[in-house]
Amino acid sequence: MRQAGRYLPEYRALREKHDFLTSCRTPELACEITLQPVRRLGVDAAILFSDILVPLPGMGIDVEFTPGPRLERTIRSAGDVATLRVSDPHESTPYVLDAIRLLRRELAPAVPLIGFAGAPFTMATYLVEGHGTKQFAEIKRLLFTDSDTAHALLSKCAETVGRYLAAQVEAGAQAAMLFDTWASLLAPSDYREFALPYVSRVFADVKRVATTLGLDVPRIYYAGTAGWLDACRATDATVIGLDWRIDLDRARAGLGDQLAVQGNLDPTVLLGSTDGITSRAADVLRRAGPTGHIFNLGHGILPDTPPDHARCLVDAVAELSSKRTA
Amino acid sequence: MRQAGRYLPEYRALREKHDFLTSCRTPELACEITLQPVRRLGVDAAILFSDILVPLPGMGIDVEFTPGPRLERTIRSAGDVATLRVSDPHESTPYVLDAIRLLRRELAPAVPLIGFAGAPFTMATYLVEGHGTKQFAEIKRLLFTDSDTAHALLSKCAETVGRYLAAQVEAGAQAAMLFDTWASLLAPSDYREFALPYVSRVFADVKRVATTLGLDVPRIYYAGTAGWLDACRATDATVIGLDWRIDLDRARAGLGDQLAVQGNLDPTVLLGSTDGITSRAADVLRRAGPTGHIFNLGHGILPDTPPDHARCLVDAVAELSSKRTA
Repeated sequence: MRQAGRYLPEYRALREKHDFLTSCRTPELACEITLQPVRRLGVDAAILFSDILVPLPGMGIDVEFTPGPRLERTIRSAGDVATLRVSDPHESTPYVLDAIRLLRRELAPAVPLIGFAGAPFTMATYLVEGHGTKQFAEIKRLLFTDSDTAHALLSKCAETVGRYLAAQVEAGAQAAMLFDTWASLLAPSDYREFALPYVSRVFADVKRVATTLGLDVPRIYYAGTAGWLDACRATDATVIGLDWRIDLDRARAGLGDQLAVQGNLDPTVLLGSTDGITSRAADVLRRAGPTGHIFNLGHGILPDTPPDHARCLVDAVAELSSKRTA
Repeated sequence: MRQAGRYLPEYRALREKHDFLTSCRTPELACEITLQPVRRLGVDAAILFSDILVPLPGMGIDVEFTPGPRLERTIRSAGDVATLRVSDPHESTPYVLDAIRLLRRELAPAVPLIGFAGAPFTMATYLVEGHGTKQFAEIKRLLFTDSDTAHALLSKCAETVGRYLAAQVEAGAQAAMLFDTWASLLAPSDYREFALPYVSRVFADVKRVATTLGLDVPRIYYAGTAGWLDACRATDATVIGLDWRIDLDRARAGLGDQLAVQGNLDPTVLLGSTDGITSRAADVLRRAGPTGHIFNLGHGILPDTPPDHARCLVDAVAELSSKRTA
């Protein structure tokens, strides 16, 4: 997650010349930034450099990054929802699809490319709140006072995101990841009503396109950790991404054998000693078991992470995994 | 939680004349604010109006509220920890103990008074970060680079908090609650190393004082929801407070029969319709089962909550509970 990133000096150098949105919207820049951590760290997979909010202008809402996102207007009523378009990714975000095509040519065949999008509930949260928040009062107020409007909004988000993520697969993304960061703020019954069905809708679009193309495309779903983790079984994801606040062996016990897991090292461990990094990585691998696990951080890497520590982690995981399978 | 509060017009009127810290430090004001929600809502128990950071000046760190807390300096090294005092609550926070004595005279005998403090890990987090944060990079960096200093800091926090909460019980608090809000950001193994043992130390102090006084004082521990909920069994709490991101029946299954639970309605439900409030309260009560449950919100009440909605909730819980026990 966010391996394409802000902690690398080569990324910062590039960002001194180009702002964040320009970097997302210029295929050559997005491609270059995606490749930076692959070159420096030797990771097994690449994740597209982009942002979950890039589909918003296509829906009719401009967004700025200062550096957090600020939306031009908020969506809080049925009338507001009516103004939203379901966007066509080929028209609204062609640069994302171009970046993916470019990356498939630039990446070594052994390094798969992960495309991603924001899950409908998380997208809707930004549309209602208009910016990042700690309290999420406006989205909750909408859910609890006008659930019809909330569902209309979530439907438009799901349709937009489904087309967007499916288009990424058509363009060449070899795995499709949905980030549902804010879903972890929901009570179990609200998760089942307002988040889960829309995740399934998006993954249905991805699955349909993958089937048409004759491809096996993993569907990865990330929603942090909450007490309703087992509800993720019903999302039609094939991999569940987890933050670090649960042990992987316990998470597996709740999710069952049919789902793979991704995660779950606390990214702040990379601020500590290399010995600590290695021992904690070993613990994650031990708890994950020998199969069905994609090693990853449990959340975004912090800007002041030493790049050498990230490299130390990648090397440790490679070494520990080869011992394990030997 | 935070029933003494910022959403009530009578509280706001009082705060127009007195700032937050003055309100905490003046027993008559703290007493009056504690009584406001008891009068207006008819709740079954009162929680002291105060703040978890009031013991800090006694430890040698001044704090301001602007409105979030800002500490005069941060604690990040062994040298910094050495400058911290273990404070005597009778010297550093006599106003809290006076407020409790006053409240025991003012409150009806049937309405117990809950005293509270911040748990050691959460206190240490503020001391290291110096203010609220989203990333918690500095506390994590300390845990992962210099765990000896972290433990020295946590020990001083535990000793201070243990004396402070025990003194509240001596002064007349009839239940003792520890808020460990930031503990939910820890991985399970880090929770067991850096949070849990210090919670137990504080509760041991509370238990000792309660035993000496011949009192049965419930020990309530709140740490949100994380994947290590069952570790709370080892804190020596008698009640576990839960946020709303887990169903109470599931939480009970992890915690066992020996612990009572407190919670767990999403406080933003109070922003919605009264029908929604009643049906969600009924769901919490149903999942909690007939005994060993203290109904409460899962986190602090939001400032723009309509007081009538809070009253509606209290009435609904009283009515539903009387039906249940009838």
